[in-house]
Amino acid sequence: MPNPTAAMLVIGDEILSGRTRDSNMPYLAGELAKKGIDLREARVVPDIAGEIIAAVKQLRARYTHVFTSGGIGPTHDDITADCVAAAFNVGIGVRDDARAILATNYANPEVDLNPQRLRMARIPDGARLIDNPVSKAPGFTLGNVHVMAGVPAVFQAMVDGLLPRLVGGKPLISRSVQINMAEGLLAGPLGEIAGAHPSVTIGCYPFNRNGVYGANVVLRAEESGALDAAESALKELVGGSVAPTS
Amino acid sequence: MPNPTAAMLVIGDEILSGRTRDSNMPYLAGELAKKGIDLREARVVPDIAGEIIAAVKQLRARYTHVFTSGGIGPTHDDITADCVAAAFNVGIGVRDDARAILATNYANPEVDLNPQRLRMARIPDGARLIDNPVSKAPGFTLGNVHVMAGVPAVFQAMVDGLLPRLVGGKPLISRSVQINMAEGLLAGPLGEIAGAHPSVTIGCYPFNRNGVYGANVVLRAEESGALDAAESALKELVGGSVAPTS
Repeated sequence: MPNPTAAMLVIGDEILSGRTRDSNMPYLAGELAKKGIDLREARVVPDIAGEIIAAVKQLRARYTHVFTSGGIGPTHDDITADCVAAAFNVGIGVRDDARAILATNYANPEVDLNPQRLRMARIPDGARLIDNPVSKAPGFTLGNVHVMAGVPAVFQAMVDGLLPRLVGGKPLISRSVQINMAEGLLAGPLGEIAGAHPSVTIGCYPFNRNGVYGANVVLRAEESGALDAAESALKELVGGSVAPTS
Repeated sequence: MPNPTAAMLVIGDEILSGRTRDSNMPYLAGELAKKGIDLREARVVPDIAGEIIAAVKQLRARYTHVFTSGGIGPTHDDITADCVAAAFNVGIGVRDDARAILATNYANPEVDLNPQRLRMARIPDGARLIDNPVSKAPGFTLGNVHVMAGVPAVFQAMVDGLLPRLVGGKPLISRSVQINMAEGLLAGPLGEIAGAHPSVTIGCYPFNRNGVYGANVVLRAEESGALDAAESALKELVGGSVAPTS
């Protein structure tokens, strides 16, 4: 059975403006790889309702899972929950269980839980909450869409709580071989190996360190046997240039 | 006249697997902001022809410009140029001027310019070359799609050479104000300011440093007058909590 697939949707003007560098996508990518869920696409969209809704609709129709980050805080530009509700055509409102969880974050909930903070307890109808051990305000899963915070510590904690719920597949295993040979010379042998080992994905990432050209070749497969065979073939073809493993 | 718009398309399995963290998007985002070209979307797709072609078609129909990074090297997984040609339904082949530029990178081009390296001189019909001062192999512009390398030093040099060719707009100017107040308390005043200053985009990015809650509020607009007004209103509403500028 093929692995489940996934897309990530990063929501936030601050990423598109170059002000903030997203670190949630690399984190999610690494965790999904371990779980055997194949991340096939990532998108960054601005804090504009029409854009978010369209992306959620498109991605959820295409992949087993969609993971979103950003836009679920208390401020006026936090519109993700409403957009996800709209994409599913369901209602949204403050939910008692979410409000109760949120209240535990404040010394004096009657006063502290102002209308803005209460926005964080607005949950689309039919959603299941995602635990937030860092700052309480929950994320949620609606259908195959998992809505999480943008703050990296919170995003990561939510992912860690969510993934055990999901059905995984075969984790890709990978090996990286550093080869001290210019990519243009390595390209021929690599193409041969790729052709002969179709179940292995082979990537080549060139570098230039102090004037020395080389490349990291990354082999990825679901089966270690296939990986062994491709790795042996690679070392045979370019043997003298393989860097010793440190 | 509204600013030109843009999307970025990052091509590469290594980003989706979490192995490599993309740094080209933040760089492009910053340069486009200075130029007055609005980056509206970013996507990461794998090294799969159908995915790349579909994304190029969709994005180029939607935005003034599309900037791609990755997949134009000499190896079997470098398929971006072919995919862009396919998206435009034009031919592609080794072009003499591109081959001549590429040859300057090698001591002995007759020998060194092997079939794999020659792949880097394959240019879609009708494209204009983008200069690569770092490692010669050119990028290209076809219609409104600008195809550049994934290696960050090369990508950046290509962007620097390309942007002066493009028509810009009004650069967004921005100001960041650090406010030592929990986001949930700041959210009310911010919403008011956002409502009263519609030409200013207001983002709120919370932090927790050593147990102290605060937020960086980022104001963005095309006109400094509008920015001044929103900044004054913000400081008036939350004056006591504005952190001194260091």
